[in-house]
Amino acid sequence: MDFSIKENILIDKIIEQALLEDIGTGDITTEFIIPSNLKAKGIIKTSEEGVVAGLDIICLVFKKLDPEICFQSKIKDGKNILPGEVLAKIAGSARTILKGERVALNFLQRMSGIATITSKFCQEVKDLPVRIVDTRKTTPGLRILEKYAVRMGGGYNHRFGLYDAVLIKDNHIAAAGGIKSAVNSVRKQISHTVNIEVEVENLSQLQEALEIKVDIIMLDNMNLETVKEAVKMVKGEVLIEASGGITLEKVRKIAQTGVDLISVGALTHSVKSLDISMEII
Amino acid sequence: MDFSIKENILIDKIIEQALLEDIGTGDITTEFIIPSNLKAKGIIKTSEEGVVAGLDIICLVFKKLDPEICFQSKIKDGKNILPGEVLAKIAGSARTILKGERVALNFLQRMSGIATITSKFCQEVKDLPVRIVDTRKTTPGLRILEKYAVRMGGGYNHRFGLYDAVLIKDNHIAAAGGIKSAVNSVRKQISHTVNIEVEVENLSQLQEALEIKVDIIMLDNMNLETVKEAVKMVKGEVLIEASGGITLEKVRKIAQTGVDLISVGALTHSVKSLDISMEII
Amino acid sequence: MDFSIKENILIDKIIEQALLEDIGTGDITTEFIIPSNLKAKGIIKTSEEGVVAGLDIICLVFKKLDPEICFQSKIKDGKNILPGEVLAKIAGSARTILKGERVALNFLQRMSGIATITSKFCQEVKDLPVRIVDTRKTTPGLRILEKYAVRMGGGYNHRFGLYDAVLIKDNHIAAAGGIKSAVNSVRKQISHTVNIEVEVENLSQLQEALEIKVDIIMLDNMNLETVKEAVKMVKGEVLIEASGGITLEKVRKIAQTGVDLISVGALTHSVKSLDISMEII
Amino acid sequence: MDFSIKENILIDKIIEQALLEDIGTGDITTEFIIPSNLKAKGIIKTSEEGVVAGLDIICLVFKKLDPEICFQSKIKDGKNILPGEVLAKIAGSARTILKGERVALNFLQRMSGIATITSKFCQEVKDLPVRIVDTRKTTPGLRILEKYAVRMGGGYNHRFGLYDAVLIKDNHIAAAGGIKSAVNSVRKQISHTVNIEVEVENLSQLQEALEIKVDIIMLDNMNLETVKEAVKMVKGEVLIEASGGITLEKVRKIAQTGVDLISVGALTHSVKSLDISMEII
Amino acid sequence: MDFSIKENILIDKIIEQALLEDIGTGDITTEFIIPSNLKAKGIIKTSEEGVVAGLDIICLVFKKLDPEICFQSKIKDGKNILPGEVLAKIAGSARTILKGERVALNFLQRMSGIATITSKFCQEVKDLPVRIVDTRKTTPGLRILEKYAVRMGGGYNHRFGLYDAVLIKDNHIAAAGGIKSAVNSVRKQISHTVNIEVEVENLSQLQEALEIKVDIIMLDNMNLETVKEAVKMVKGEVLIEASGGITLEKVRKIAQTGVDLISVGALTHSVKSLDISMEII
Amino acid sequence: MDFSIKENILIDKIIEQALLEDIGTGDITTEFIIPSNLKAKGIIKTSEEGVVAGLDIICLVFKKLDPEICFQSKIKDGKNILPGEVLAKIAGSARTILKGERVALNFLQRMSGIATITSKFCQEVKDLPVRIVDTRKTTPGLRILEKYAVRMGGGYNHRFGLYDAVLIKDNHIAAAGGIKSAVNSVRKQISHTVNIEVEVENLSQLQEALEIKVDIIMLDNMNLETVKEAVKMVKGEVLIEASGGITLEKVRKIAQTGVDLISVGALTHSVKSLDISMEII
Repeated sequence: MDFSIKENILIDKIIEQALLEDIGTGDITTEFIIPSNLKAKGIIKTSEEGVVAGLDIICLVFKKLDPEICFQSKIKDGKNILPGEVLAKIAGSARTILKGERVALNFLQRMSGIATITSKFCQEVKDLPVRIVDTRKTTPGLRILEKYAVRMGGGYNHRFGLYDAVLIKDNHIAAAGGIKSAVNSVRKQISHTVNIEVEVENLSQLQEALEIKVDIIMLDNMNLETVKEAVKMVKGEVLIEASGGITLEKVRKIAQTGVDLISVGALTHSVKSLDISMEII
Repeated sequence: MDFSIKENILIDKIIEQALLEDIGTGDITTEFIIPSNLKAKGIIKTSEEGVVAGLDIICLVFKKLDPEICFQSKIKDGKNILPGEVLAKIAGSARTILKGERVALNFLQRMSGIATITSKFCQEVKDLPVRIVDTRKTTPGLRILEKYAVRMGGGYNHRFGLYDAVLIKDNHIAAAGGIKSAVNSVRKQISHTVNIEVEVENLSQLQEALEIKVDIIMLDNMNLETVKEAVKMVKGEVLIEASGGITLEKVRKIAQTGVDLISVGALTHSVKSLDISMEII
Repeated sequence: MDFSIKENILIDKIIEQALLEDIGTGDITTEFIIPSNLKAKGIIKTSEEGVVAGLDIICLVFKKLDPEICFQSKIKDGKNILPGEVLAKIAGSARTILKGERVALNFLQRMSGIATITSKFCQEVKDLPVRIVDTRKTTPGLRILEKYAVRMGGGYNHRFGLYDAVLIKDNHIAAAGGIKSAVNSVRKQISHTVNIEVEVENLSQLQEALEIKVDIIMLDNMNLETVKEAVKMVKGEVLIEASGGITLEKVRKIAQTGVDLISVGALTHSVKSLDISMEII
Repeated sequence: MDFSIKENILIDKIIEQALLEDIGTGDITTEFIIPSNLKAKGIIKTSEEGVVAGLDIICLVFKKLDPEICFQSKIKDGKNILPGEVLAKIAGSARTILKGERVALNFLQRMSGIATITSKFCQEVKDLPVRIVDTRKTTPGLRILEKYAVRMGGGYNHRFGLYDAVLIKDNHIAAAGGIKSAVNSVRKQISHTVNIEVEVENLSQLQEALEIKVDIIMLDNMNLETVKEAVKMVKGEVLIEASGGITLEKVRKIAQTGVDLISVGALTHSVKSLDISMEII
Repeated sequence: MDFSIKENILIDKIIEQALLEDIGTGDITTEFIIPSNLKAKGIIKTSEEGVVAGLDIICLVFKKLDPEICFQSKIKDGKNILPGEVLAKIAGSARTILKGERVALNFLQRMSGIATITSKFCQEVKDLPVRIVDTRKTTPGLRILEKYAVRMGGGYNHRFGLYDAVLIKDNHIAAAGGIKSAVNSVRKQISHTVNIEVEVENLSQLQEALEIKVDIIMLDNMNLETVKEAVKMVKGEVLIEASGGITLEKVRKIAQTGVDLISVGALTHSVKSLDISMEII
Repeated sequence: MDFSIKENILIDKIIEQALLEDIGTGDITTEFIIPSNLKAKGIIKTSEEGVVAGLDIICLVFKKLDPEICFQSKIKDGKNILPGEVLAKIAGSARTILKGERVALNFLQRMSGIATITSKFCQEVKDLPVRIVDTRKTTPGLRILEKYAVRMGGGYNHRFGLYDAVLIKDNHIAAAGGIKSAVNSVRKQISHTVNIEVEVENLSQLQEALEIKVDIIMLDNMNLETVKEAVKMVKGEVLIEASGGITLEKVRKIAQTGVDLISVGALTHSVKSLDISMEII
């Protein structure tokens, strides 16, 4: 069961915008060549191994153009896929299928790329009690879809935006005159449903954060030794998140320190699209 | 001089959407900690070598939040940048600077990533009479910005969408019963300002396209030998575009065959963000 | 310092929509009578005692119509106001002032009404360690402004929507087959920044919720005795929220039981506008 | 038969906005607990006596989320309802029902609250030849729905906005240099389909308005004796509207003076939501 | 003094949409040729005699692209203009002036065309007590501007849409079973600010309409003799509007019958743009 | 087969906007008279000879209001129609049919007017190898529909906007210091899919344009003799477009000079709506 990407007006608007961007005043190639009553069938196929994400989205892309299109997923988002595997079948107006193809694939390839790299990070630490989480380093306008793709790859989401959790960083601390006064200032006003996380750069800041009892502490760009030290100091009293420059090579070592969360910007900011294509059959 | 990204209503809406996505009902960390009258100054700095693109955009991001913010670029889009280089300075309300930071960087890092990889492809072929061009494999919603970034990296744009040029592909050809009838069908109806490009998969299709005198021929996923053969057949009479699986390693060899254009999906579909950050000073 | 209602694109759109609704194709009375170059001055005055909220909003209303209008608040949102008190002064085009008057007052009167009733609830319990919090029973389209008004009245916000906190209710519990399985199902997938609250209807449900260690427990419509019992069982281990049918008469008694939070739908669902008006001087 | 609230694009957008506001990036409680294929049935039930309004709206709320939801009203808008009465039944996806519940009820409770208070005013004067009418003191963004609810309660609508009728107030009169010149200025330019109403504050202004033959005269905040005097002076030649501080206690006395219309801001600006809820069965 | 077309959010959106339509992803001619810092001056000049309307609009068009553009009208909307006359001057960024030129002129030429033809109709009847009024036969999306242009030409507006006045036509009469029952049905429910007009096709329908005392009667496509007869029957008790197939040749004869209003669809549905152009100087 | 006006999000939004403009807060005549369950049938009939365009659009207008309406075209867009001919039948809710009638006809009459005048121009030159093309002198907001109507009348489209083709005019030439430098400046940067057209005012400019080898040359407002001279100079090497002041009387003479394209602003800027109406049967 999962966080739905159907029945969501935000996503409906993202898809509408993407179709407007690509089709604009009309697909002049297709509309001047393909008869309006021609039917066609297509398959969506991967050429690469990975984890799929976005099949529901591409269904919505085609339905937005033509509610009578018939779309059938052969596999669920979040599953591993192998080269040559058919991910979905589509049937209906040939014009619709050709007009929606690129937009649909642009979503699917990017989202599957995110799910795939996320899955690789998760595999590295799968036996350890740690979560791989995303960041706000997402593509402008696509955050809801990219965070969904992270979950499909086995990762977890960090906050969705500036509005749904507190993350106190160096500049906030400086302006407030210290971690304690920053945390107190927030705590006095914030909803009881919102957690407070503080980013610390060294162990003395960590100590200050521990004393003021925040919910989560982010260790910012610390080396492995300092992370280990930090975990010891925290003694499991609050969640610890390691962050900054995490790579596939380093992630296991970081995880082994005992941190609860490892946030990885690269899950969304530097994604290789998965090689997926559509064939008319 | 360049294709402006100011004075463009499309871009204004993209920025508005990105800010809505991140800030939503409010930046609860900043607004509960930073006094509304506190002023701050920041610098935008790169940690990586590359080509910068998007400085005008991030200016618009901050101005959208607060027209009184003061933003000053230290370099122009399209220029090479070195680790440690300051790209821009910003001054004004501390709240505004902190609230806009992530959205601004998400644009700038991605666009600079595109400019940088494009520039690498262009360097490989800089002494050859060939253009590196982009594709429609862009991030949904950001095409206008990503195509701008390609130009900043020294590349050229292919069509912007399905509406502004004709590209006849295999499925169109199959539906029309051959290249000739597809081209004729379009030619009878299309605006005289629009060029017609045909994608061919082999040399006999190429021959058919040459006979019907299209404007551009795309060689789809052909090996080097076939591309050379194709160039000979064409004799400079129409533009030839090589496409499909072009990598940094292969691009020079392809260029040396004498094709006019090489289109590279990876310029936009698999981008590593450039490592750029903001510091409050 | 406070949660800003400036620099927020959501609010800008709410104001735009309200002006469109009232002015539509034009204010035919004003535009056919008042010369376009006539200047005027006005004051915003309250006829009732209460707490003011929304002065920044009405500034934005007038500025949206005419950026050159001059608006000056005489008091800050969240302050007590007395009958006859001048809350703000406005000067500029007479047309603008007359066209924006009703929309501005509709916002200000409603928001001040919310701040005022919230303040009354808070006064009742001001010496007790309890927070008065709002609910999602807000006017469709105005939640961000109504939750701001609650804060101005001394109250606190509960979650902003279905997206930023988990609140497990009876139907969720029934579907999941019990509180434990519902909580576990969420916990496995939810972001670590999100708190989990469970609504319980009796003490045995409370016991189940305590065992699974949720962050907050809502006591739904319990009588005073049961609430007291519940507080004892919880022993301060999680936050307790009392909810359901809370009135000004009952709120102090509920607070004295030792609950941490009392949520009051009437703060926003049944509001008497404060009597505030504009006079041209 | 009635002013339709279906087939209206304005209302469709209001509903969309309300769902976006509450659901945003997703209902994390429901989506992580309730299986996507679980079906449920619910009933909408009132706990309070009153007049119902908004059942068509809540049907649209659920259909917007999921066109396959099945919604059945058991009673028509404008009817009296009794505590415990079932107003509607709903069946379909459990997720949809839970996600739309609060938004649907927020509309229905507010609109029914308006219909109910309107009905109370109308009952007071039901044997007298007078209409209870609303004002522009509505909730920003919801005017079309609130004016519909007034009609459902037996009241009538005044103008919808500044664009569809002329109402000349004190400031217009002052700027024009008197009622006559204000009315003449409008009359020279206004569409023949638009009525002209003038607000008068005393009997000498009334005399001036009678001489210039406007369509409607509003008696602003006059005491009972003056209203009686005014009615005599008017002799049925134009419509008279009493306005300002009308309460349930005073309305009958005012009506007995013989005025044609009594406008009541409190119908919409100070509404107690009717206590209506949804139960999953 | 006039119905303002500034300070109107509807008009702002119409202009934004028009610019998006023409400029889209960018003005590739201008942006690749004209340096971004080049300044230019232009004049707007008419080659044809007529009545000007829309100068405020084109000011907004250029300001929307660039708030720093300097625009100066040399004449007011509604004035007669002669061939060669300069209507406005513009100065600022050359790019902005070239990018906005066509959209600005498309508005100005069409609106001035409407003002000019309206003025011709008005001239024909200028000594008679009759109003030339427009209809709902306007260009989709531009009604507010086209109705403004009619006023600038000396004409008057009929209702703005289906929402602001009642016009009972043959199909309504048929469905209701006669004029009386149709009028009664509306009268029972409609706001007192709204007028009721009935369209009649013959004198017996006219008689029925007179008996039920509507506010305005439209004589639909009657010949001159019948119109005269109708005017006699009405005796000045209600407004009479002649409608259907009114031409410049016929309008004076119709006016001489003594009708109050003559509505002319051709004011807006068949407009010749006035020949106005921009010159860079 | 033709450029589709279905499955286009742009068109969907144009229709939505047009309905909002006319119906606004509701069709008060229809909704207060016509029962919501009354069914009706109507026919769309022309009173004038011409070429029809827009039947698909009006189908979408009615479906937007009510998806269950039944609409059946009796003829295809682009066909000749005769007075009295039935163009379409409609059946369904009487309210829907009456509410959508005017908006539907406003689209259909205008689009058919454009198709009809275009067809007249095309008839004049039907035996000659020349295309009649449109311009950007279209009604703001309706370009996509007006350009479609031109095609339905047998004409061809010029560029859709400033974004999809280069047209270098006098001001661009002046700013660049000559045709050659303007063309070179564009050519260096523009996509290879975009054609370059230059507007020339005399034969020496023509010579310059020929030397730099542009794709299309527009002869701006030249007299017949100069056009003949120009055609000779060009020798078929590039496309020649005649433009400026083309009338039905002059078009054949111009065509006989041998130009390839004749652009006619009057196709869209000065259109007489075709007389088409709806009858309830």
